[in-house]
Amino acid sequence: MPSEESMKRALQAYVDGLNARDADAVIALFADEAEIEDPVGTAVKRGSEIEAWFRGAVRAEAQLELVAPIRASHGKSAAMAFTVTSVRRDGRYLTNSLDVAHFDERGKIVRLEGYWGPQDRRRLGRAGESA
Amino acid sequence: MPSEESMKRALQAYVDGLNARDADAVIALFADEAEIEDPVGTAVKRGSEIEAWFRGAVRAEAQLELVAPIRASHGKSAAMAFTVTSVRRDGRYLTNSLDVAHFDERGKIVRLEGYWGPQDRRRLGRAGESA
Repeated sequence: MPSEESMKRALQAYVDGLNARDADAVIALFADEAEIEDPVGTAVKRGSEIEAWFRGAVRAEAQLELVAPIRASHGKSAAMAFTVTSVRRDGRYLTNSLDVAHFDERGKIVRLEGYWGPQDRRRLGRAGESA
Repeated sequence: MPSEESMKRALQAYVDGLNARDADAVIALFADEAEIEDPVGTAVKRGSEIEAWFRGAVRAEAQLELVAPIRASHGKSAAMAFTVTSVRRDGRYLTNSLDVAHFDERGKIVRLEGYWGPQDRRRLGRAGESA
């Protein structure tokens, strides 16, 4: 079973990889059969959809900031609360988000769930403006 | 479908109910068929086990503090990161925790998942001592 430390390291690498705009580093954290439901309540992404999604996040200049230490569990899951800023066509947005990740025996993410609702995202300003 | 607001209100009522040591108020947030996996990776609790568990939490003087705004989702789920202090036989403990709740159409919690690992809990001092 993946250790608490290894699961927390993987989620920290997820944050760091996006902040470094390194989509490949983030994609490498996932098992081949992984699925992502982000935000929860929308269609699940798999395989090439996951790759395209992270490349889109990097293009949108997604920047994540943890708001509390990453939590593990007594099983193969870990979770983290964070804010993320990203640039969309009509401006910069800040989203209050929270991810739960489930891992396989090798420590790869097999399922990622992103919890944020429409009201958890707010517009900061037009693209290029400071917040 | 339960609204973002109603799911957030339910999780806030969960925090407030425990902090007020009102187990009945917390139990009333759950559907009859609800299940709780807290911490994730341990046995699921149902029915009378859930009632006993919350009465135990009140006896342990569990006090929760949100560390960030509660998040909703695009579906019937919401999540929150918090710390919780509780008194056990050998002292007071602080746990970094994070709960995900899934709701039914009426806005009752049908499944609660608590994410915290052994290393997310630390001892603050002996019972009766100040931290």
